[in-house]
Amino acid sequence: MSLLIKNGEIVTADSHYKSDIYVEDQTITRIGKNLEAPPNAEVVDAEGKYVFPGFIDPHVHIYLPFMGTVTKDTHETGSKAGLVGGTTTFIEMMVPNKNDDLLEGFELWTGKAKNNAASDYTFHMGVPYFNEKTESQLKEIIQQGIASFKIFLAYKGVFGVDDEELYNTLTFAKKHGIITTAHCENETLVSELRKLLMSQGKTGPEYHEPSRPAWVEAAGVKHFTSFLETTGAEGYIVHLSSEQALNEALRAKNRGVKVSIETLIQYLLLDSNHAELPNFEGSKYVMSPPLRIKSNQKILWNGLERGLIDTVATDHAPFDFKGQKDMGKGDFTKIPNGIPGIEDRVNLLYTYGVKRGNLNLNQMVSLLSTKQAQLFDMFPRKGTIQPGSDADLVVYDPNYRGKISAKTQTMNVDYSAFEGMEIEGKPSLVTVRGKVSVRDGEFVGDKGWGQLVKREPSHF
Amino acid sequence: MSLLIKNGEIVTADSHYKSDIYVEDQTITRIGKNLEAPPNAEVVDAEGKYVFPGFIDPHVHIYLPFMGTVTKDTHETGSKAGLVGGTTTFIEMMVPNKNDDLLEGFELWTGKAKNNAASDYTFHMGVPYFNEKTESQLKEIIQQGIASFKIFLAYKGVFGVDDEELYNTLTFAKKHGIITTAHCENETLVSELRKLLMSQGKTGPEYHEPSRPAWVEAAGVKHFTSFLETTGAEGYIVHLSSEQALNEALRAKNRGVKVSIETLIQYLLLDSNHAELPNFEGSKYVMSPPLRIKSNQKILWNGLERGLIDTVATDHAPFDFKGQKDMGKGDFTKIPNGIPGIEDRVNLLYTYGVKRGNLNLNQMVSLLSTKQAQLFDMFPRKGTIQPGSDADLVVYDPNYRGKISAKTQTMNVDYSAFEGMEIEGKPSLVTVRGKVSVRDGEFVGDKGWGQLVKREPSHF
Amino acid sequence: MSLLIKNGEIVTADSHYKSDIYVEDQTITRIGKNLEAPPNAEVVDAEGKYVFPGFIDPHVHIYLPFMGTVTKDTHETGSKAGLVGGTTTFIEMMVPNKNDDLLEGFELWTGKAKNNAASDYTFHMGVPYFNEKTESQLKEIIQQGIASFKIFLAYKGVFGVDDEELYNTLTFAKKHGIITTAHCENETLVSELRKLLMSQGKTGPEYHEPSRPAWVEAAGVKHFTSFLETTGAEGYIVHLSSEQALNEALRAKNRGVKVSIETLIQYLLLDSNHAELPNFEGSKYVMSPPLRIKSNQKILWNGLERGLIDTVATDHAPFDFKGQKDMGKGDFTKIPNGIPGIEDRVNLLYTYGVKRGNLNLNQMVSLLSTKQAQLFDMFPRKGTIQPGSDADLVVYDPNYRGKISAKTQTMNVDYSAFEGMEIEGKPSLVTVRGKVSVRDGEFVGDKGWGQLVKREPSHF
Amino acid sequence: MSLLIKNGEIVTADSHYKSDIYVEDQTITRIGKNLEAPPNAEVVDAEGKYVFPGFIDPHVHIYLPFMGTVTKDTHETGSKAGLVGGTTTFIEMMVPNKNDDLLEGFELWTGKAKNNAASDYTFHMGVPYFNEKTESQLKEIIQQGIASFKIFLAYKGVFGVDDEELYNTLTFAKKHGIITTAHCENETLVSELRKLLMSQGKTGPEYHEPSRPAWVEAAGVKHFTSFLETTGAEGYIVHLSSEQALNEALRAKNRGVKVSIETLIQYLLLDSNHAELPNFEGSKYVMSPPLRIKSNQKILWNGLERGLIDTVATDHAPFDFKGQKDMGKGDFTKIPNGIPGIEDRVNLLYTYGVKRGNLNLNQMVSLLSTKQAQLFDMFPRKGTIQPGSDADLVVYDPNYRGKISAKTQTMNVDYSAFEGMEIEGKPSLVTVRGKVSVRDGEFVGDKGWGQLVKREPSHF
Repeated sequence: MSLLIKNGEIVTADSHYKSDIYVEDQTITRIGKNLEAPPNAEVVDAEGKYVFPGFIDPHVHIYLPFMGTVTKDTHETGSKAGLVGGTTTFIEMMVPNKNDDLLEGFELWTGKAKNNAASDYTFHMGVPYFNEKTESQLKEIIQQGIASFKIFLAYKGVFGVDDEELYNTLTFAKKHGIITTAHCENETLVSELRKLLMSQGKTGPEYHEPSRPAWVEAAGVKHFTSFLETTGAEGYIVHLSSEQALNEALRAKNRGVKVSIETLIQYLLLDSNHAELPNFEGSKYVMSPPLRIKSNQKILWNGLERGLIDTVATDHAPFDFKGQKDMGKGDFTKIPNGIPGIEDRVNLLYTYGVKRGNLNLNQMVSLLSTKQAQLFDMFPRKGTIQPGSDADLVVYDPNYRGKISAKTQTMNVDYSAFEGMEIEGKPSLVTVRGKVSVRDGEFVGDKGWGQLVKREPSHF
Repeated sequence: MSLLIKNGEIVTADSHYKSDIYVEDQTITRIGKNLEAPPNAEVVDAEGKYVFPGFIDPHVHIYLPFMGTVTKDTHETGSKAGLVGGTTTFIEMMVPNKNDDLLEGFELWTGKAKNNAASDYTFHMGVPYFNEKTESQLKEIIQQGIASFKIFLAYKGVFGVDDEELYNTLTFAKKHGIITTAHCENETLVSELRKLLMSQGKTGPEYHEPSRPAWVEAAGVKHFTSFLETTGAEGYIVHLSSEQALNEALRAKNRGVKVSIETLIQYLLLDSNHAELPNFEGSKYVMSPPLRIKSNQKILWNGLERGLIDTVATDHAPFDFKGQKDMGKGDFTKIPNGIPGIEDRVNLLYTYGVKRGNLNLNQMVSLLSTKQAQLFDMFPRKGTIQPGSDADLVVYDPNYRGKISAKTQTMNVDYSAFEGMEIEGKPSLVTVRGKVSVRDGEFVGDKGWGQLVKREPSHF
Repeated sequence: MSLLIKNGEIVTADSHYKSDIYVEDQTITRIGKNLEAPPNAEVVDAEGKYVFPGFIDPHVHIYLPFMGTVTKDTHETGSKAGLVGGTTTFIEMMVPNKNDDLLEGFELWTGKAKNNAASDYTFHMGVPYFNEKTESQLKEIIQQGIASFKIFLAYKGVFGVDDEELYNTLTFAKKHGIITTAHCENETLVSELRKLLMSQGKTGPEYHEPSRPAWVEAAGVKHFTSFLETTGAEGYIVHLSSEQALNEALRAKNRGVKVSIETLIQYLLLDSNHAELPNFEGSKYVMSPPLRIKSNQKILWNGLERGLIDTVATDHAPFDFKGQKDMGKGDFTKIPNGIPGIEDRVNLLYTYGVKRGNLNLNQMVSLLSTKQAQLFDMFPRKGTIQPGSDADLVVYDPNYRGKISAKTQTMNVDYSAFEGMEIEGKPSLVTVRGKVSVRDGEFVGDKGWGQLVKREPSHF
Repeated sequence: MSLLIKNGEIVTADSHYKSDIYVEDQTITRIGKNLEAPPNAEVVDAEGKYVFPGFIDPHVHIYLPFMGTVTKDTHETGSKAGLVGGTTTFIEMMVPNKNDDLLEGFELWTGKAKNNAASDYTFHMGVPYFNEKTESQLKEIIQQGIASFKIFLAYKGVFGVDDEELYNTLTFAKKHGIITTAHCENETLVSELRKLLMSQGKTGPEYHEPSRPAWVEAAGVKHFTSFLETTGAEGYIVHLSSEQALNEALRAKNRGVKVSIETLIQYLLLDSNHAELPNFEGSKYVMSPPLRIKSNQKILWNGLERGLIDTVATDHAPFDFKGQKDMGKGDFTKIPNGIPGIEDRVNLLYTYGVKRGNLNLNQMVSLLSTKQAQLFDMFPRKGTIQPGSDADLVVYDPNYRGKISAKTQTMNVDYSAFEGMEIEGKPSLVTVRGKVSVRDGEFVGDKGWGQLVKREPSHF
């Protein structure tokens, strides 16, 4: 079956033009004015709308057993939410812990996604240790199409690696062309500060931020980038949240370390004051690294505009307020960490980035799609609009006006951290490899249509 | 007349695919596989070749009366040289000096280019002073399609502006959406160091670099960016040459100053040792800012790879070794400044960037074309390959092997600073708005085909 | 006549011990326990008190014709105020303007001080221009015992120098071993911002700070230090007020520029909020560079504690609130700049530095006396307590408790910016070259006892 | 017995004057001109000589079992060497390893020093772990007069601490007012690079530096200072060797971390080229952090001059070339680390610092004595010349001319890294608490005269 999208304003990271797009067999085959389609083709009129390459969320958790509970989304609900919000591919963290077998972890996560996800997906392979079996298992996982790793400097004892494991992982990664993503916070400082605050009776969600101050993140960035510098491996800092960490990462870039930087839509729009909301509502805003002081947002927006930060993600991790977040009442260290966002990232960056004059459309596409495709070896199959690319397309309506609300959201979680925020645009039609999966803003796709995007490592 | 380029590997800043391109009436109208063309269309087989968007040199001098002499290229020879090297648009500095009328300057430069340039072109309007007539004259020049200014912190008394002129120019620029490009070296430090060195009998070309040390450039960058910070205007640092200046510029980017950075192909491949060549050959390597120590090159290459530097230009300024450069025998301050390069920039960045593993093809296109089109308001008409864009196309042969030599070059100058350097690729066919202007590596275009690219300011 | 101070706790920058001090003929001759004195010697019991070397205020204005008015202190009142506050030597700016003759200026200021000052004094020689007569005049002034210059980047047209004047002054200074002090703010940015704010109806004292933002000061620091770097001259940044300027100055120190840093007691304890006081009281807090946001104070205190900042001064400039400050009603640019402080510096740094745990006593002495003596070629005659030094001694009572108030102050000005602030120590006895000039906290000295401290340049 | 030193030029960190010094009962009791002494007093004529406070080497190893061997000096030979070179107090690292009991370590080291050292001494208490017994043992050691700790980020498994041990040590230190000194290199990066280089057949001493590159030291500095920032503890970076590490440490100072910096005389005068000497002589120049490239020296000298670096030490660790250094033939990782220097530090800093114009005499005293006394709670008993201080005095002959040679040195080691270097000054007489221990440059003291300097912690 074929699809013709007519008269849209096509926007990629480096182009902007009015044209038709013709899709056959999951692939874009022609781009041009006045294209004609066979009688059986579906024809979509995109007049007055943008056509973007499908957006990629490079950092989500769909299935995450963590802190004694499990995220609420399934690969079905999570991928639907992504699609409704314009995200046609997500990269999930598969995070076996220190006691798990890597291959079993790989099977577990891929098994959960397969036949359930409505959008395409791939994984960053968590590497929580490095023992005699690790090399052969990782090779097999690479064979299966995984081209990126995830390591944690934080969460020692669960996901975290020690320095030798870190060195070995990066040395292996360098040899095999793998890019390694990293959560950069010093574990010990965090855990000691948590103990200290709790011992002082500082138990509420507002003490989450002080338990992980910005310099602890900066120290993590320095640590990670020094290991990159030594091994020559390529790295990617996930969820960079603070000015101090950004300065450290930029110094690394500038001295020749191969490193890229991701920030989150949450850090751009929310701040540490939210954690002070009454009735334990502050717990909704607990994630790690934490939301920072409001003045920090300006630094991050500027980093996007000046090209200093590479991608915008969500670290989507949906834990309900009732029954999950409230496990941390009286003890902020027990609040499951995470702020859901897979559904809202695109609309928020469009509204508060492009419409507010902080970014142009090309930058938005680069930050939400192209750069992640390039860094994570999906480009040019994903991340752009060109003949031969997967027909992952977002027909975006810039005239939509609405508000974010948990009541109307698709994500399977009982609150929204962005509740009530206005959005000034929304996907009207979304395709995944040519299949129309959102129409008139509603999900119309198929659970199970999504595929694992097999990737070939290139970061040698 | 129409043109069909078949089977090329199309590469833009954010795409890479094999496809055909069809051109009608100076414009790309279709992109797709297996396009068909009317019988009268010219068909070019690009199998095994790249097809790039036409490259843009954002900083050249074709007509430059300077230091008592005049550059050797005409708009005919300069544009031919550019085209043979893949540059389909150049941005020339029109630099009336402090005694000249701006409108007369505008007429002079546009008059020289018109009916002579074989490629497209535009100008950065030099603003050497700011008096009661300036505003109205600049408004008229903007009306004529100019959207960028050039100011000099150096060359006081000729082109240089004082602080009040700088402030007024940037305030005017901000109001009218103009981006201002700047030569950043402190004038006084340079002129005093020149006097000092000469008084010490240090008269050879090897003393040119010590007369303009890197910290003098860094001071200039700080000065310019502080004025941008105060006025809110958008700026562009031309020919950034040194680590110190780069650090200063990055600090500015990071604190929110709207500024972009250009470096030159010369700084990436040549160094200050060249100025020590015997028989006054060192004079061939005299330009400002000067070539720096070799270790500086690594910093600049890294800046390109990490996205910290935005564009690569040439500051093309062709003065003959015999009869011009030698005016400075016995007095390096009299050597006409400049190293020609409009013909070689693309081949050198391809060879020493892409082929040597420092950059990928998408980065190369961004650095040589897309970013300048975006910054200087020619995008997406120029700088990318999309339906509706000008059909400025470079069919590039990656199998070509050759050497740069003054004997074989097109530029009207009697030496090459890159003499003997190997290149591993070359344009085989180049079009300017659909007109084939280079075929089999030879110029086949028309003097006068080139047009002034009219631009609308956007940097409000 | 001789003096024996018994049982005091002597504190210098590098010592702290209980001992007696014996003074003969204006000079310390013996230090030791249980010293005996001839019968006619005055004996002072300093039990329970500190004995400090006389403090030096390295940056004051006593006679300052500026902005259409003149400071209120005379050398008599200013020096008395200094003495009561423990300052036994001040360095005044002699600031002829661009239309004045330097030698006449020198005569004017030295004439006013002579026979009037009760404490010792010297001058930084202002250099507002550099013409054919300047070298010979400066040589003569150096002959008279002046070893430091003052230049202004701000106040163009009055005191300010252009780049060539700056270069020539520093080159001359380097050759003659002179240290050059500098007011670092870019003149043009300040004057344009003043115009802009006034044109927007922002006329109150609270707009003084926005008219001279911190980056304008940082730009000035970069400019000055680049000229030091080029000439090899030694420099001293007066009244550094902001984090941005400090960062810039530290980068200069770290790359080898010979530069020292002075901050003011005002910046450590007051902030920009004070300029918002009603009834035009904000005008009392107008000085340049301006008071900054409160969070800036922490940075400066830390700089003192870590040894990154060298001295603490006052930039004492006493203009009355009534009749002088109020000249700027409706136009903040007409408010005479300056906040008096010569009387309060020592007590405030002792109270809010030492007593609050930010500094130790040795650091306090270094910051208030020793470092300025060393930098400005008065050491070890001044700035320490050793046999052979001038007997400038401060017997300091750490048990005193009181409040600062304009009602009780000695300075000839009608307000205090520190009104109501508590102090927890005060000089009980002060000597100037052996002469007891303050006893029981009251001035008992002689107008005219003060001498010009002749200095020999050493900063070659 | 009493001692009168007449007519010397006394120089401390903040004074410089000609005077007599009278010593009774181990203590300076009087300072003044024309002092008289009882008949039985020894009188020394110091005319034409400097009198400095006894110098303090804040970082030495006398007894060091390490890498399968033991340093050659005893407390007798080591202290004699120090005294001959003007060092009257040394601070030795007592470094029990991870398997040792801390109190036993304390007893072992203090036992070895007692009755053997001819000069005074104290210790930094090594803390190689932190378990349930540690707090009580450290409290007891503090009771015994120890006020500083030493931790190693390097040498994991021997002396090194993990992050939790580091945090606990610093938290304990903060609570008890202890300053913690730290060896800052990331352990894992070093050990992995050593393995890597060895596996590549890079086995000679010239590969020692590449096995511990400067960024590994900078990473260590960032790590340590982040832990200081979190705990509020006061720290001291030992043997800082590189520009990168210095930049990192200065950023820490500037953001409010309580940290001081020590460099070594070796880094100021030797460089990594020395490790390339033939016949395995390169092994003489192996220490950690390693000697760096020559251009690094200028940065460190500037850091001393500008006050950015606090102290100069030696990390004295005497291993013979024959029989010890040569254990590492064919495997640089087995070369015992260390370059002896306790004897030469003062003469070298005087010659290459003061005489070459890099430092003044006051700075020299501060860097070699005063600052370490202040930081390590021996001030003003040590580190200055004042009534009541220990009579540790160095009468220094600035007219001496000689060369350093292993043949004539006092240190018990078979080579000198400074062989053949000229020195332009030397102690002629040295006292330890009033006892003349060096006369006419020869040791005349008593083994066993030295005492443990008991210290009271102050760094709360």
